[in-house]
Amino acid sequence: MEKAQKTADALPSWKDGEAKERILNFVKNAADSASKNYIPPAERIAVFDNDGTLWNEAPMLFQVSFMFDRIKSLAAQNPDWKTQQPYKAVLENDHEAMKKFTHQDFGKLMAASHAGISPEEFKAAATQWFDTAQHPVYKRPYLKCVYQPQLELLNYLRENGFKNFIVSGGGVDFMRAFAEKTYGIPPEQIIGSSAKTTMESKDGKPALMKTPELQSFDDRAEKVSNINLHIGRRPVLACGNSDGDLNMLQYTAAGTGPNLEIYIHHDDAEREMAYEKHPLMGELKEGLVEAKAKNWIIVSMKNDWKKVFPD
Amino acid sequence: MEKAQKTADALPSWKDGEAKERILNFVKNAADSASKNYIPPAERIAVFDNDGTLWNEAPMLFQVSFMFDRIKSLAAQNPDWKTQQPYKAVLENDHEAMKKFTHQDFGKLMAASHAGISPEEFKAAATQWFDTAQHPVYKRPYLKCVYQPQLELLNYLRENGFKNFIVSGGGVDFMRAFAEKTYGIPPEQIIGSSAKTTMESKDGKPALMKTPELQSFDDRAEKVSNINLHIGRRPVLACGNSDGDLNMLQYTAAGTGPNLEIYIHHDDAEREMAYEKHPLMGELKEGLVEAKAKNWIIVSMKNDWKKVFPD
Repeated sequence: MEKAQKTADALPSWKDGEAKERILNFVKNAADSASKNYIPPAERIAVFDNDGTLWNEAPMLFQVSFMFDRIKSLAAQNPDWKTQQPYKAVLENDHEAMKKFTHQDFGKLMAASHAGISPEEFKAAATQWFDTAQHPVYKRPYLKCVYQPQLELLNYLRENGFKNFIVSGGGVDFMRAFAEKTYGIPPEQIIGSSAKTTMESKDGKPALMKTPELQSFDDRAEKVSNINLHIGRRPVLACGNSDGDLNMLQYTAAGTGPNLEIYIHHDDAEREMAYEKHPLMGELKEGLVEAKAKNWIIVSMKNDWKKVFPD
Repeated sequence: MEKAQKTADALPSWKDGEAKERILNFVKNAADSASKNYIPPAERIAVFDNDGTLWNEAPMLFQVSFMFDRIKSLAAQNPDWKTQQPYKAVLENDHEAMKKFTHQDFGKLMAASHAGISPEEFKAAATQWFDTAQHPVYKRPYLKCVYQPQLELLNYLRENGFKNFIVSGGGVDFMRAFAEKTYGIPPEQIIGSSAKTTMESKDGKPALMKTPELQSFDDRAEKVSNINLHIGRRPVLACGNSDGDLNMLQYTAAGTGPNLEIYIHHDDAEREMAYEKHPLMGELKEGLVEAKAKNWIIVSMKNDWKKVFPD
């Protein structure tokens, strides 16, 4: 008979309270074959958004910071960029010009920084950036801007037979550069936005090349379609932090067995940042209304977490 | 220290010989941390084509048989089909008309049989078909037309820490209807051709719907792109049976560590079928030339397998 792994101090950075208690109860029952809320191991699929859910996303998505830094590092090979927009604005840190960037401008910057190389080369570039770059506000490496309570939750789920997946609007290759080491989530459990790849011959060997053509923008309903495409099974736990995650939580909540929906609420101005509408991106508005109406867990970063970032 | 699982009789349906010996050696070394050909567990990714590699594909792809049967089962709800091509040909088993089917005709039949329902409903329809339909030549259920030696290989790999993936031109939802039970391969390890899905509201609950729009035709170079998209790691073992699998084998062979490439050769006219050019589909031509040149394993179904199908 299967019994849940010990729960004492499974989530040491979570304060005692309703959120922690409901999570512990859900997992304990899921892994207890004597419970009426038992979930067979193969069905223990948990999906997590990444930006703002597993790590910080402000003042700017980390991947955008990476993109800007990579444009700078490639500038010497592209002398024209000094006088060409949108590259010029990035090279000169011209924030006023950046604020006016169109979708097309971002597309050009993405192509210049993310395409024309193999996934392996891209991974090496991202890894080097993670090893050296610092978060502009917290003055620590980006990989130390993950949420400590969420690392504990991922680990607790894994110990109880859950398979954790990331389902994020972030680029899949970017996340794969750190998620295995940082979250314990292997590349095959990462779903994200992606560009098309083509097979080419490089030094006489077959190699994949990243193209600028978008394959999937993994947000809103596309998250659900991608869960079906990649996982093929409805999750039993879903965790996000914005309206872009709402469809994923709704889909999980529509399952016929036990399920748990969690919203992370950025309400900690002191230790992180308080916002419902992100300065540059999405917001948590409809999601908050639905979460309250349906009694989903709304995690207050301020009141439910003892700490936000790892030491 | 990690040691390989016992290999005695790991592959009882494989005859002693070079193919069996090379497979056993590769796996034994991959799982032996003292071997110079050791492969860390996370990197033990094996990819298998399905049609003609894990199960029979002749005289017609099983999914095409399913499609025809499903058109027949839906005919009562679609009285117009009696007089409309391409449906009429299917309903009347008009083989001459079927031979003239265009891509567009197949598209219409796919849409009518595979779209407009949820993945769950589709899975139920496929499962019912597997429970009742019989292979026209072997007069046994389709799920008994899998290759017994391959079931043993999948199991042997799994016991030695490999993660087996299917990477097939077949439809992903169709394969997910049986692969977990039959091959021990869970839905999240199945990559196939796919149609786009949309999120809709059904009985007041969010549901996915399969559309007729192609998302990915998982063949040739697209197999490699999909391996990168879904797995994000280069496989160390690849097994196929046609030129459609060649890119996948080449990509695996271009890895920098130990790797193994296997072609299944349909040369057993007595127990199965002997062909290099499939009567309706692809062929094994370029692949065979390259396999010989590069000393990949070419499995003779006639000479390397004691039996083809399970008892």
